[in-house]
Order: sequence, then C-alpha cells, then structure tokens
Amino acid sequence: MEITRRNLFKGSAALAVIGAVGPVSSALDDPLASWNDGPAKKAIVDFVRATVNQSSPTFVPAEQRIATFDQDGTLWVEHPMYTQVVYCFERVPVVVKAKPELANVEPFKTVLSGNHEAIAKLTMDDLFKILGATLTGMHVDQFESEAKQWLDHARHPRWKRPYSELTYLPMTEVLNYMRANGYRTYIVTGGGQDFVRVYSGKTYGIPPEQVVGTAGGTSYGYDKNGKPFLTKEPKLLLNDNNAGKPEGIHLMIGRRPFAAFGNSTGDRQMLEYTKAGDGNRLAMLVLHDDGSREYAYGPATGLPDTKVGTFTQALYDEAKSKGWTVISMKNDWKRIFV
Amino acid sequence: MEITRRNLFKGSAALAVIGAVGPVSSALDDPLASWNDGPAKKAIVDFVRATVNQSSPTFVPAEQRIATFDQDGTLWVEHPMYTQVVYCFERVPVVVKAKPELANVEPFKTVLSGNHEAIAKLTMDDLFKILGATLTGMHVDQFESEAKQWLDHARHPRWKRPYSELTYLPMTEVLNYMRANGYRTYIVTGGGQDFVRVYSGKTYGIPPEQVVGTAGGTSYGYDKNGKPFLTKEPKLLLNDNNAGKPEGIHLMIGRRPFAAFGNSTGDRQMLEYTKAGDGNRLAMLVLHDDGSREYAYGPATGLPDTKVGTFTQALYDEAKSKGWTVISMKNDWKRIFV
Repeated sequence: MEITRRNLFKGSAALAVIGAVGPVSSALDDPLASWNDGPAKKAIVDFVRATVNQSSPTFVPAEQRIATFDQDGTLWVEHPMYTQVVYCFERVPVVVKAKPELANVEPFKTVLSGNHEAIAKLTMDDLFKILGATLTGMHVDQFESEAKQWLDHARHPRWKRPYSELTYLPMTEVLNYMRANGYRTYIVTGGGQDFVRVYSGKTYGIPPEQVVGTAGGTSYGYDKNGKPFLTKEPKLLLNDNNAGKPEGIHLMIGRRPFAAFGNSTGDRQMLEYTKAGDGNRLAMLVLHDDGSREYAYGPATGLPDTKVGTFTQALYDEAKSKGWTVISMKNDWKRIFV
Repeated sequence: MEITRRNLFKGSAALAVIGAVGPVSSALDDPLASWNDGPAKKAIVDFVRATVNQSSPTFVPAEQRIATFDQDGTLWVEHPMYTQVVYCFERVPVVVKAKPELANVEPFKTVLSGNHEAIAKLTMDDLFKILGATLTGMHVDQFESEAKQWLDHARHPRWKRPYSELTYLPMTEVLNYMRANGYRTYIVTGGGQDFVRVYSGKTYGIPPEQVVGTAGGTSYGYDKNGKPFLTKEPKLLLNDNNAGKPEGIHLMIGRRPFAAFGNSTGDRQMLEYTKAGDGNRLAMLVLHDDGSREYAYGPATGLPDTKVGTFTQALYDEAKSKGWTVISMKNDWKRIFV
C-alpha cells in the first residue's frame, strides 16, 4: 500500500478508536490489568518470567509447568456457604420425594423445615449425611445434568447473580496469564470433583481431567438393555483437603506443581508441598479483607473467624516465614468481579 | 528462485536420495507403515478420519478426543511375566535386607530360595504380599528413582533387551497417529500407576498425568527439617482392572474415551464403556497369535490359556457381536518390535 496523507489519517482514526476503549487496550498490554501494582502482582509476573524464559537459571520445561488453584474462596466466592453445599441443601426435597421415609429422619427433617436457626446448628456429621444422600446413588450422567440445570438457575443471595459470574476477575487473569505462558492450570478443591467438573470448562477454561477434588467411588453396571453405566457410590476415595491436597495431586497429576494458590488452612499442605520443590516455586494465599466489595473474615483480618475458608494467624505466620505471598483483596485487586 | 535446468536437476537428485531411504519415505506417507492392509488398519484410519474431519457427521471437538490404551500385552510384551511383577520379585532381597525378620516368613522365603517350581506355585494372596512389601513403605521420590534404576538395567529373558525396547512398533505408530490427529493418549493399566509413570514419558511419549493405573494411597509427612514428603501406603484406592477401568477413567479423566485398546478380559469393561458412547467409537483387541515372533496364548488362538492377559472365547465372541475389531499380531503386523 502506498502511504498517503489520506490513509495515514485513516490509520490515526483507527488508533484513536482503539485508544477510546481504554480497558481493552490496557488489558492487551497488561495480562493482570485488574491487579494494582504491588508485591502480589510482582510475585506472579516475576515467577512466570523466571520459569518460562529459556535463558533463566530457573527455566521450567513446558511439560512440567503445572499450576494448582483451590476453588472456593480462591477462584470464586465461598460466602456465606460453599456453592456445592447450597446445591445439596436444595436437593433435599427431591431426594425426600424419591424416598418419602426420609421426611421424618434427621437431618433431612430439619432441612425440610426451612428453620434457619435449626439448620445453622446442624453438625458436620449431619452435613455428611446430606452430602451422601444428594451426591450419590445416581448415574454419573444423571448427576451431571441435574447439577448443570441447578447451576443455570441458582443465584447468589447477595448479588442475585449466577455463581459462575462470581469468579474473581483478577484470578481469571492469573489463569489466563499462566496458560498463555504454557502452564497447565488445575483446580485442586475440597469440593466434589464431579460437581466442579460440571462447570469448570465454561467457568474457568479448565477441562474435567484438570479438576482434582474430593472424590467418591463409582460402580460399573448394566441397564436392562445391557448398556453400561457408572453409579456414584457413597464411598470416599479422596478427601481433597489439607494433607489430602498433595496426596490428591500425586494421585491425579503425578507431578509437583510449580505454583499453587489457596486461601485457607485447607490449602496449607498444598502450598508447603509446592514450595518445597527445587527451583523457583510460587505459593500464594488470598486474604479476604474486603468487607465492602466481598467479605472480610478470619483472624488475620482482625475480624471474627467464620469457619468458612479459615485463614488462621498460624497460616499467616507460616506464609511470612516460608516466602508465600499473601494477596490482599482490598489492596491488590482493582476490581473483584467482571 | 528462477527455475533452470540446473536447479531442477538438483531437485531431482534430492528426491532420488529421499527415495533411496525407502522406509523413511513410506513412514512419512503412511503413519501406520508397520501394519498390513486389512480390517484392523482400516478400522483405525476410518475412525480417525470420521472423528477429526470437520465436515464429518461424527466429528469430535479436539478437547473431547481421548484414546485409552491398556499397557501389558497391548503396548508391550507381558510374557512370561508382567514387567512390574518381575521388578517386585527382584526387589525382595532388598526388602529382606532392610527387614531381616522376613527371610523366614512366606512368601518371601520361597522367593529368596530361587526355586522356580515353588515360586510358580505362589498364590495371588502371596503375590499381593510381595507387591505390598516391595511397592509401599517408601517415599514416592525414592520409589521412583529405584524403579528407574532397575528399568535401566533389567533385560527381558528371551530377547535380552530392556523392557522399554519391547514395545510393539505398530502400537507406537497408533499412539503417534492418534496424537497427530489431536487425540490425547492415556494408558489405562492394571499395573501400578506410580510404576508405569516412571517410564511412560520416555517409552510412550505419555506424561504421568495421562497414566491411570492401579493406585494406592500416600500419606503426607515431614522430615526432621520440616521438609514435606509423601509415603506410599499399602492402601488400595483403585484396582484398575475389569470394572475398575471405566471407574478409573471416570475418576482420573472424567470423560468417556472415543477409542480404547486392550488385549484381555481385564479390558472388557473399558471397551464396552467406550463403545457405548454416542457417535463413532473405536474398540480394539490385540490377539496374541504369533508364537514365533512373540507369543501365542488364550483359547481364541486354539492354544493353551496361560492366564496371562486372558483372551477368552467369550471375549472374542463379545468383540464380534459388538463391533470391536480384533488385531491379529500374526496377520496385521508387518513387524513387532523396532
């Protein structure tokens, strides 16, 4: 093309239009555009540069680039209740309809009563009974379609938005940034593996085979036409919390991650295990200290510990002593949601 | 470049040189060059074309392209004994050295005696005791380095070659052909997941996270310096044989394969599960009917069933009735090993 005053002008006009859509242009320049400059953002960028630059002494070959992310409280909102627990509570009427004898049996009776005070007093043992009754006993395909249908309609009580829209934009940027640099991103969650797999692709761009979660057994059988199916059994294979996270990573991935992100004591061992590897490793913890834009909880915030995604003082101290980086939602994130 | 008689001639000379290296040229043309033309080769090529061609009614999006392969007897030799079982037997002296009290306890006493007749009479229960003693109780890193060292030195009794060289060339071609067409290739083996992961990358181009096998639990702990490690525990999480194969595929991959390859009754449910999916699915069984180039065993060969990789008449009949393709090593494979 011949350069003339006319097409130069057209070019400038095009640039001006791009410039007007500020956030797009800046997002193109900065893959972590929702992060304020500070030690957290710097830790991520420095780590990626140090591990993907071929001339770096801590270069990591592409096939070894594994980054693991806790889900609840790390990638999306876990307050006031884990999404999957909400699902299980809301499934109770369906389960009782199929097995009416449960209507007068605890803890189902209490859940059906709708009495919030009584429900809040249910024990962990009660919770496990509810999880067992609502997450097992059906074919895996049936579970998948029911969970998907629920997720399409469920809304968070505070924002009145689908849970899939309550992912943290800055963490979505980290997922994309890591993947653009050859990292395979895994979810390593205390939540149910089958549950998270239902939406992980659409919500996080993470395929089912890259979801490690609390997993139960299945059993293989045949229907009356001889067609095989798998039934979800109430048999726990992996409790993917605490020590279960590195154990689950070994079982499902077979490699030690180079980067790990969490937000609670349930992620402690995953971060220890990641950071204990050779070379440059990244361990980060999201601190929920933004009560106005999201929630503030845990002793490290000076606010009451709500027992959801516990971020204890001991965890905070371990982070400081072992070189893990704490992400302050209040200070490090320009924006929380899309 | 200007075309002249001179550079045309150079081009022809270059072509002549390539032509002289016959097998390379033909391998470039035909990704399955070690296969004779016939129904088995045709089934593979037809399946790949029908699932990766965008205009095909049975097109499969890239992210869903999963192919699973049994290992022993499907990708490499399983005769006269599974490689991992050989490893476990050869590890017994090391285990007894560390725990001398085992020297007079069965089945270790018999293994140490070297009496082949007595060893051949050991029961499955004895075998599990040997597997437990030789595959658990150590850190995962230690297990990995010991197994790797053994594999570097072990030789097959018949061919006197490392086990890694006794992979079937035609199946290596299938792995490469599937991958070149966007399929992710998984090993789904009754063998130990941790054992196979030690060499799967180098031997098959399959990374550890794409190995599904019989898996035991691990436990997380710390050494005296506070450094974390994982110990292999004698607790079975997944028996990846028979119904355990589809169950393991659900646990570890979370998707139904589009293609599955096996060679024995242990692979039956994996092939059923694969073939029962929608669209175009491929199920194939390797029949060991070549006693001179490899081994011939199983009733379908008309030869005695050796109980290794059992290919029963019932399996053969199911294959025929369900549209699975049987691969005759004798007739379908031009060459067995590299």
